[in-house]
Amino acid sequence: MAPPLTLADLGETAVIDRLTRLLPASPPSVLTGPGDDCAVIQTSFNESVTLLKADSVVEGVHFLSGEQMRRVGWKAVCRAVSDIAAMGGRPLHALIAVAVKPEMPLQTLEDFYSGISDAAKSYNVAIVGGETVRTAGPLVCSIFLTGTVPAEHCILRSGGKPGDVLLVTGKLGGSFASGRHLDFTPRLAEGQWLAKHEGTHAMMDLSDGLAVDAPRLAKASQCGLKIDVELIPCNEGCGVSQAVGDGEDFELLVAVAAHSVPELLLEWNAEFPELPLSAIGSLTGSAEGFQPEEIFTNRGYDHFQQP
Amino acid sequence: MAPPLTLADLGETAVIDRLTRLLPASPPSVLTGPGDDCAVIQTSFNESVTLLKADSVVEGVHFLSGEQMRRVGWKAVCRAVSDIAAMGGRPLHALIAVAVKPEMPLQTLEDFYSGISDAAKSYNVAIVGGETVRTAGPLVCSIFLTGTVPAEHCILRSGGKPGDVLLVTGKLGGSFASGRHLDFTPRLAEGQWLAKHEGTHAMMDLSDGLAVDAPRLAKASQCGLKIDVELIPCNEGCGVSQAVGDGEDFELLVAVAAHSVPELLLEWNAEFPELPLSAIGSLTGSAEGFQPEEIFTNRGYDHFQQP
Repeated sequence: MAPPLTLADLGETAVIDRLTRLLPASPPSVLTGPGDDCAVIQTSFNESVTLLKADSVVEGVHFLSGEQMRRVGWKAVCRAVSDIAAMGGRPLHALIAVAVKPEMPLQTLEDFYSGISDAAKSYNVAIVGGETVRTAGPLVCSIFLTGTVPAEHCILRSGGKPGDVLLVTGKLGGSFASGRHLDFTPRLAEGQWLAKHEGTHAMMDLSDGLAVDAPRLAKASQCGLKIDVELIPCNEGCGVSQAVGDGEDFELLVAVAAHSVPELLLEWNAEFPELPLSAIGSLTGSAEGFQPEEIFTNRGYDHFQQP
Repeated sequence: MAPPLTLADLGETAVIDRLTRLLPASPPSVLTGPGDDCAVIQTSFNESVTLLKADSVVEGVHFLSGEQMRRVGWKAVCRAVSDIAAMGGRPLHALIAVAVKPEMPLQTLEDFYSGISDAAKSYNVAIVGGETVRTAGPLVCSIFLTGTVPAEHCILRSGGKPGDVLLVTGKLGGSFASGRHLDFTPRLAEGQWLAKHEGTHAMMDLSDGLAVDAPRLAKASQCGLKIDVELIPCNEGCGVSQAVGDGEDFELLVAVAAHSVPELLLEWNAEFPELPLSAIGSLTGSAEGFQPEEIFTNRGYDHFQQP
């Protein structure tokens, strides 16, 4: 008898597809369910929608044992804030669920919470509850974050159209090696600004690497994809391979109507002069047009398949 | 130099107190923050409030390795539903964050999600997202659940008054030994019914055992507590020690104005003839009146201090 299929055999995307099919159908108030940066919920009596996001950090995966825990707490909150940013939204309320070993020094957990608190203050997030439970294994912390966005400015991954130009904020690659993954700035103001621009069709944040994430946006938009690797903005010391494969950049990837791009770039440079916004490719009409393995030498991050 | 204080040295309640103090102050829209069964958020434009809850199950703590994962999935959702019930609320939307080993068979995770799906259907919960991440340790699953309740029927732990009668639904004890902790029924209809009764002042669900949870309700209400152990409804095969200390009962503990109790019990028996509602004691005027160690021989469940 063949051994049972494991999560590693299937890989993250296929596992999530399988699990999602097991869930009951959502009521009409759920405008966007699993599969985007956040869930989008219709709110009665006003023109805003509610955003819901869960995001986890795991010791040994998202940070190393012995890391400064204040930075890990910052990262835990900012990862979720980045997803709210990717919808054009504003974060509101958070719950913290943390599983830790009982023998952890109190000071370590307090440092972690101080980082959570720093991030909450920086982005006006109210921590309204949570829980601590014990585990015999690595620390696992899940952050639950709510947010809000005017319905007409809520930008999904699925809104991209053939011909849209793909742009990326900041520079990519080397996030883990440089420690930047612990201190990054979620692009909250930038996401809200982009979401209000009439040319913006689709948006997501880059957490698993451009090589994994860009095809996700293209697929959600039922488009193909062309990336000019020469145009990818790389962090110092990084080549294209790191820029598309390292992950944890938490920059925004945005699809903009081609005719809006020149004006948008001019306005962007006036509004955010410190942060580059780079056109790196476009969405195409055919979903066949994109063969990641031909373009990228590094596959991006899959939670269940490691090299 | 003394070794650093660990979480086990302090115990769960003291750890949570320390962590809560590190968090920024909440804005006025947060009607109830950390410390109750759910957070309570003021919603604009209508008379309902929003409930937010995070709850986790950990392999080796809340269920044993090798347990039927469909039952574990049921439990994971129903624990959070029970907290919404304890506010008198109705659950709405859930996110699932699960950390698992990559070598887990796909079927195991699908069984877990089938249990999640069963519970979601039973209690009209829309699963709107979540994420799977890998861990090298035990499975950790955090459920984030939103809910709603008319503001005038939202029952906190802190509303109890001296002289209130304490009542408990169902029977207590033996939840782990019997396997009931995996198949329990959250008291959702009962919680909504109790919340609408004008005599109901305070409510919570019993997850850590009456010996730990009843003092939490009394403390939140700035009251003392008297429990008549003879009146505690025990499950078959359980003595008082198990009934107050085993935990994971997920029954409701409710404080009701004494003059309302006779009528409430009559109406309860007509509405829920199968489920006992038992008066077990009362809140007192003095917070000095309750000495748990004098009444209970079993301390209830503390996440960081194990016998």
